[in-house]
This record gives sequence, C-alpha cells and structure tokens, in this order.
Amino acid sequence: MINLQPTFREPMSAIQIDEHGRLRHLLTLENLGRAHIDALLDRAAALRATVRAGSALPPLLAGRTVVNLFFEPSTRTRTSFELAARRLGALVVNFDIGSSSTSKGESLEDTLATLEAMDSDAFVVRHKENGTPARLAAHARRAAILNAGDGNHAHPTQGLLDLLTIRDRKGRIDGLKVAICGDVKHSRVARSDIHGLAALDAAEIRLCGPAALLPAQEDVPGCRITSDFDAALDAADVVIMLRIQKERIEHLPGFDEAEYFARYGLTRARLARARPDAVVMHPGPINRGIEIAPDVADGTQSVILDQVANGIFVRMAVLAELLQR
Amino acid sequence: MINLQPTFREPMSAIQIDEHGRLRHLLTLENLGRAHIDALLDRAAALRATVRAGSALPPLLAGRTVVNLFFEPSTRTRTSFELAARRLGALVVNFDIGSSSTSKGESLEDTLATLEAMDSDAFVVRHKENGTPARLAAHARRAAILNAGDGNHAHPTQGLLDLLTIRDRKGRIDGLKVAICGDVKHSRVARSDIHGLAALDAAEIRLCGPAALLPAQEDVPGCRITSDFDAALDAADVVIMLRIQKERIEHLPGFDEAEYFARYGLTRARLARARPDAVVMHPGPINRGIEIAPDVADGTQSVILDQVANGIFVRMAVLAELLQR
Amino acid sequence: MINLQPTFREPMSAIQIDEHGRLRHLLTLENLGRAHIDALLDRAAALRATVRAGSALPPLLAGRTVVNLFFEPSTRTRTSFELAARRLGALVVNFDIGSSSTSKGESLEDTLATLEAMDSDAFVVRHKENGTPARLAAHARRAAILNAGDGNHAHPTQGLLDLLTIRDRKGRIDGLKVAICGDVKHSRVARSDIHGLAALDAAEIRLCGPAALLPAQEDVPGCRITSDFDAALDAADVVIMLRIQKERIEHLPGFDEAEYFARYGLTRARLARARPDAVVMHPGPINRGIEIAPDVADGTQSVILDQVANGIFVRMAVLAELLQR
Repeated sequence: MINLQPTFREPMSAIQIDEHGRLRHLLTLENLGRAHIDALLDRAAALRATVRAGSALPPLLAGRTVVNLFFEPSTRTRTSFELAARRLGALVVNFDIGSSSTSKGESLEDTLATLEAMDSDAFVVRHKENGTPARLAAHARRAAILNAGDGNHAHPTQGLLDLLTIRDRKGRIDGLKVAICGDVKHSRVARSDIHGLAALDAAEIRLCGPAALLPAQEDVPGCRITSDFDAALDAADVVIMLRIQKERIEHLPGFDEAEYFARYGLTRARLARARPDAVVMHPGPINRGIEIAPDVADGTQSVILDQVANGIFVRMAVLAELLQR
Repeated sequence: MINLQPTFREPMSAIQIDEHGRLRHLLTLENLGRAHIDALLDRAAALRATVRAGSALPPLLAGRTVVNLFFEPSTRTRTSFELAARRLGALVVNFDIGSSSTSKGESLEDTLATLEAMDSDAFVVRHKENGTPARLAAHARRAAILNAGDGNHAHPTQGLLDLLTIRDRKGRIDGLKVAICGDVKHSRVARSDIHGLAALDAAEIRLCGPAALLPAQEDVPGCRITSDFDAALDAADVVIMLRIQKERIEHLPGFDEAEYFARYGLTRARLARARPDAVVMHPGPINRGIEIAPDVADGTQSVILDQVANGIFVRMAVLAELLQR
Repeated sequence: MINLQPTFREPMSAIQIDEHGRLRHLLTLENLGRAHIDALLDRAAALRATVRAGSALPPLLAGRTVVNLFFEPSTRTRTSFELAARRLGALVVNFDIGSSSTSKGESLEDTLATLEAMDSDAFVVRHKENGTPARLAAHARRAAILNAGDGNHAHPTQGLLDLLTIRDRKGRIDGLKVAICGDVKHSRVARSDIHGLAALDAAEIRLCGPAALLPAQEDVPGCRITSDFDAALDAADVVIMLRIQKERIEHLPGFDEAEYFARYGLTRARLARARPDAVVMHPGPINRGIEIAPDVADGTQSVILDQVANGIFVRMAVLAELLQR
C-alpha cells in the first residue's frame, strides 16, 4: 500500500463529502476513497456502454445549468466538460472571464453568489492558484463545484479518466506498476493520478524526471523517485508521460529540447524496457519529439485517444453523481 | 405623482409600442405605462412560481432565435438574458463583436439586417452610445430589440427587476420613499428605476451623491436631489446603492475611495436612519467598502441576490411578451 | 461549356466522395458534379419550404456534434453554420482557437484527433491556408470536414447558396450570363462560384476588375477576363460584386477608394447595362460606396439578403447530407 502525505493542512475530503457520505463537490481524489472512485468509474463505463450500443443517453441533467469558470485557458478540458454536460441535457454557460465582473474588481465569491442566484447548479472551475475550487466550495450555498485543475494541486477528473483507461486495458489497478515521467513536480495530473492509483492499490508508483522537476520524497512518501528513466520503465505495466510545459521549462538554466528527448523522451527502444503489454498514456496536448516519439504516440500501445474519449464519460458520471436530485 | 422630462426629443414609446398597443421592442421604461409594467412583473412572478414549485418551464421560445449583441463587455447581464432565453427553449447566439463584420467596417444596420435574414427573432443590445437600441429598432423588419443598457440612458430590464424585487418585499410600489445613491448622473440603472418608480406611483424619489455626480433638477423634475446622504436615507423604504465605476470616477479631481465611503458608503449606522424594514438594493457588481459596507451587502435587509434571481424571470417575461406569436 | 483547370494537382474530388459515390466531406465545388450539387440545392429548398410553411424542422442532427474550427475570424459564416446545425438539433461547439491546444504547439492533426475522440461528427473549418480542410479530411477517421473558406481557394457553401439564390430568381443556371466583379484573383467566393456555375452550365462567366486583381487566363480557361466593367455588365443576367478587402488592397500602390468606385463600383447607371431583370449579389459584408452604391445594395434587383437566408438552408442541407446515418 502506498502512503501519501496530505496536500493541504485541512483535508478537502471534509468539504467534498457531505454528512451522509455522499459526494457534494469533486475537488481532489485525495482521501476520496475506493468506494466513491469505483462508483464513478462504473457509472462512466455504463454511460459509455449506452453510447457505444447506439442508444440515446438519458437526459440526467435536463433542466440543470452548468457554468464553466475557466480562469486559465483550456479548450480541451472545457470542451470535454461542455460536451459531457450538454449530452446529458444540461444547459452550459461558458463564463467569459475577460469581460466579466471579476475583471471589474468583483470578488470571486461574489461572482459565485451572483451566478448561483441565477439558479446555476454546478461550476466547473480551473484556476492557476491551488485551492481556488475548495475556496468556492466553502462558499457555495447549493451548487456543486468541480475542480477542472487548480495550480499544481489536483485535476481529479483527469485522474479518474486515467484510472478508467487503465482498468479497461488491464482489468484492474491493484498490483500494477506505474511510471509517471516528466515534470512531476508541477503536475496536477500526476498528483491526482498518484492519489487515485494509491486508492485503488497500485503496487508501485515510480516518479521520474530531471531532479529539478521531481517532488520531495516527503511529499510523496509511498512513491519511488528516480531520475533514471530506464529504471522507472523497467517491467512497468503503465507509462504515463507528462507534458513539458515550455513556458515553465524555459526558465530552467540549460534546458534543451533535444537533450531532454534523449534522456526522458519515450521512444520505441525505451518502451521495450516496460512490459510488452504496457500501455502508454499522456494527458495531452502532446509535444511530439520532446517527451514522446511520434511513433510511440501513434503506436499500438498508446491509449492517448482512449483517455480523451473516457474523459467525456467520466465527466458525465461526476456531473450526474453531483447533480442527482 | 412624479413628473419627469422626456430624455429624447422623439419619445421611444412611439417605437416600442405597436399600433395595437402591444409591446414590440423594450427600449425604455419612460412612458411605458403602468399596464405594461404590471403585466411584465406579473408574468415574471408567474414564471418564478413555476420554477419554485419544481415544475418545468413552458417552452415558450421553442424554435426562436435570440442574438446577444453586446458592444460593451458584460457577463452578468448577458448571462442573465442567455439563461432566460434558453430556459424557455430559445436558441441563443452570442455575437462576437471582436471578430465580427462590424469590426470589418460593416454598418450596425447591415449587421442587423444580415442577422435578421438568418431568421433571428430578437436582439439583446448593449452599447455605450445612448439610443443605439432605438436606432436598431427603427431599422428592424420583424425582430424585437431589447435594450440591455445604452450609455447613461436606460436599462429597462434592470428597472423592471428592481420593481419586482421591491414589490415582493413591500407588497406595492405606490407610496414608497426610495433613495437612489451614488453616481446618479451617469447611471442608466438610476434612469430606468426613476421611470419605473414614477410609473408605479412611488411617493418620493431621492437622488443623492456628490454634486458632480447628480443630474440637473430640470432633467428629473419630480425627484428630490441632495448631497446629504443622511437626509436621503431618512425614513426611506428602499435604498438603491449604485456602483462607483472606477474608470469614470478617477477622472474626478481629488476623488478618494476612503473619503467617498465615509460620506456616501452605506454602513449599518447609516442604514439605521432608514425605516427599520427598509430594503437595500444594488445592481452589482458591488464594490465592497466603497459604496457599501460588506456587512450591509450581506445583511438581512439586503435583497441584492434577489435582484439577480429576479433578473432571470423579468427577462423571461419580456422575451415571452415580445416573441409570442 | 466552360472548361476549368484543376486548382490542386491532386483533385479533392477523390477525398470528398467516398467509394460509393456519396459525399463524405465538402471541400470544393470543383469536380463535384451536377448530381451532387442539384441534390444539395433541392434539399436546401425543401428545408426552406418547411420553415416558410411554419412547420418545425425535422431533428435530422439530433445526437450529433458539430465543431466550428475557425482559424480566421468570421462571425457571419460561423453564425450561419451554427444556426443551421442547431436548428436541426445538433450540439455545436465553437472551438476557441486563441485559448486552444494549437496555440500551445499542438499540431492541427492532433487537435482534430482529440476532438474526434470526443465523438465529434463534423468539423466546420476556416483557415487562411489553401488546402487545410483537405489536409484535415485526409486525417479524419470518421468525422466529416466542411470547408468554410480556405485561403483564396474555395468557399463551397457560399458557392451553393449563390447557385440556389440564382436558381430561385431565374428558374435555372444554364444559359445564364454571369459577371463576377472585384478582387477576383484573391476571392475563394469567386472560385467556388465559377466551379458551381460551370457545373450547372452557365453560358458565360465574365471576370472583371483591375488587372492586378484578375486571375491568369490559364487558371480559368473557360471564363472571359476583362478590366472593362461596362463590357462585363453588358446584358448580364447576374452580377456578383465582390468585397474589396481593405487590408489586402491598401498594399496596392495608388489604390484609391473613390477612384475604385468610379471605375468598378456598381451604380444604378452602371447596372442599367445589364438585363433589366438582372439580379445583384454580394457575399457580404458590403462596403457601401466602394464596390456597390447604397441604393443598388438596397434596391429591388438586390438579392443580398436572400443569399444570407439561403446560406442557412444550404448549410443545413450539406450537414444533413454528410451526417445522415
């Protein structure tokens, strides 16, 4: 079993689970617990089965209003949430931050209160500061808050869609060896993956990257930390490659794309060190030739587009769970 | 009874009411008349009752297309109109001015004609110039024009939602003493409130603010104008605080936020001068600590979030009235 | 019969028609063939008849997702596609290029693959580079690509709506004399009009403008090229005026708006040279007083707003054709 340190002093699990043990917000996978995670994955898989069978989706969110509050640009995640909500019948509003009251000096809490007063049922929040979704959840009167990525803290729906994708291919999470490679230190995706994998009893989580991009061991006590990419890949069942965010990396003295690819880029030769049936994952958008070779990204072991497809169903499941009457 | 001077030489009442006395556009509350106002408020209250009873709203706008034409940024009002229209079944298009033909030199009238040719049924217009919605109404062939705020001229749906909010709490408008405080001179909200309150026989309208931010007496002949905030609040039934628009105010020589708050900020001590059951209103977004103290904004006499909620229903009522076949 | 040179070495007809002869993408009218064009125009006219009869449109696109991928700003065309798709029941997503993954360095092909993995059924693409929609069509796994304008290459739905508008007024295309005037060289509208008119056996296509804005004869071998506006208009059945794109024209040494209007602006006097029942067309947005006189744009021979109205129905027809199961 993997032991992890809490990210925040006051655990968000107290905010996101109500007194009846039901999910009220989705802020983090940390301390969410296996039962909640399994229920969400099962629901996502059931919705997917409906679509794949050519059946119409049930209008689970008819009459509901979902507001996308994206303070950081993200078309991919925003579109995934929007499609998930609208395909279940919700009315979705994309709040335009640039021309909004918050840009006129209104506090985020007042913006939330205003939009709640318009009978909004859920807010999908992305923000560059850790804890913003939790701060909004603490102020919400009735609406559910969904964290769509806050700072380097958490991206729980990405964690869930990664779990679903692994479970599809491997039949289980428990006992698997998972390598997470790249800028682990600044990655909210990595953090949510770690919490989800630990909850579902992955055997080993290996975090790999240049020393400057790795978290401190005390922050991820159950994980193996290494700068040796070959060791991280050795007999791995799952390889999760992270996106190098150029805007963050170019501050590193002496960072060089070609050199990074040579040391930490996933090539076919490198991938041969993992188990032959290992799956290759990436949260996207991918930098071809920086963290991953094009033929690996497009290869038979890659499940990158499955991740995207599962993202819709996981977000449907979370919205349906949070907004059921 | 309060007497008011007409704002424009040619009254817009001639444009917004058709030859059968029916509402064709909503440009201003000036000369709209009690019967029309009461009908809209009643319809808004009925739609609200439907929602509060947990019933589904009737698809009054199914098959109709509403275009949001916002030449000034406003997420709050645009979202309110969008939700109102979509919850009644309309298809809503947010016209992106920045990438539009008008930015390529097309006249506003040609943009209107083009969008009307696409079978648009209503245009919700916000523009910094007084009279733009009226100008468009004069050119519309079939579509209804809704003024969502033009310059410092009018914001009729804000006026209506303020009337509904007051009527809810006080049971009536007639006989009430209403104080409107802040930058009255440049406020389209104040102007529409004044016209609406006068039409529904408010007993007294007091306009209060620094001399530089007050209208000339001849423009608002029936109102009491004062720079004495305490006098304005004395035994008032309703206190409407206006937003200080920093971009406008900072041109004033010697304007100081703390000094403004000391003289014209609504605190609990100040509010005690009004009637004990007085309601506190604000069109939002609020500047906490400039025109209103946080504990008053969040206090039991504040109906600010009721205003927001009523905004949806008032806009539904106006759209339903204008687009009924 | 008008003979035309192929625009690209490898004809797009091979991409846009599947092995059963069915339309799979709409990239260009070049080599599309009369049967396909007539079928689309008939379908558009039938959908229009439904709406004009006051009947509800069939939800032909219910459960389908259409993504607007506009890499060039265009509110007019984007809105037309959006309304067409939504009125037939599709869910439409406007992909915000500015905040998208492509702006983070993702390849266009990866963006397409990602959005396809979210179960998108069609992509409406506008791009400044010739051939971008074809490039995407070559990579699409299942989704249909609709060209909404690429560089100066093609704008096939504009071509179709122009054909429908002419057919409405003239009862036919074959045998007609059509003048296309303005910046023909850089116009994708002109190119698609030429291909469509040629396919439907127009008698004569005359291309007119300043020498610098005319294509080479070998590129449009079946067309008559002239800089003599009066000659181009002589006994014409149809006059298509093109928009002068100021950003492109101001690079021309010595370009002067007044001089252009004097030589190539369509005035009533000029129009008198065409047949008395000639129709005047323009793809919009119009520059009043540059390429067309206001009284001609608004006159009885102008069908400019009919073009706009037909645009919706033509786009419905294309979407319905491409997305029928």
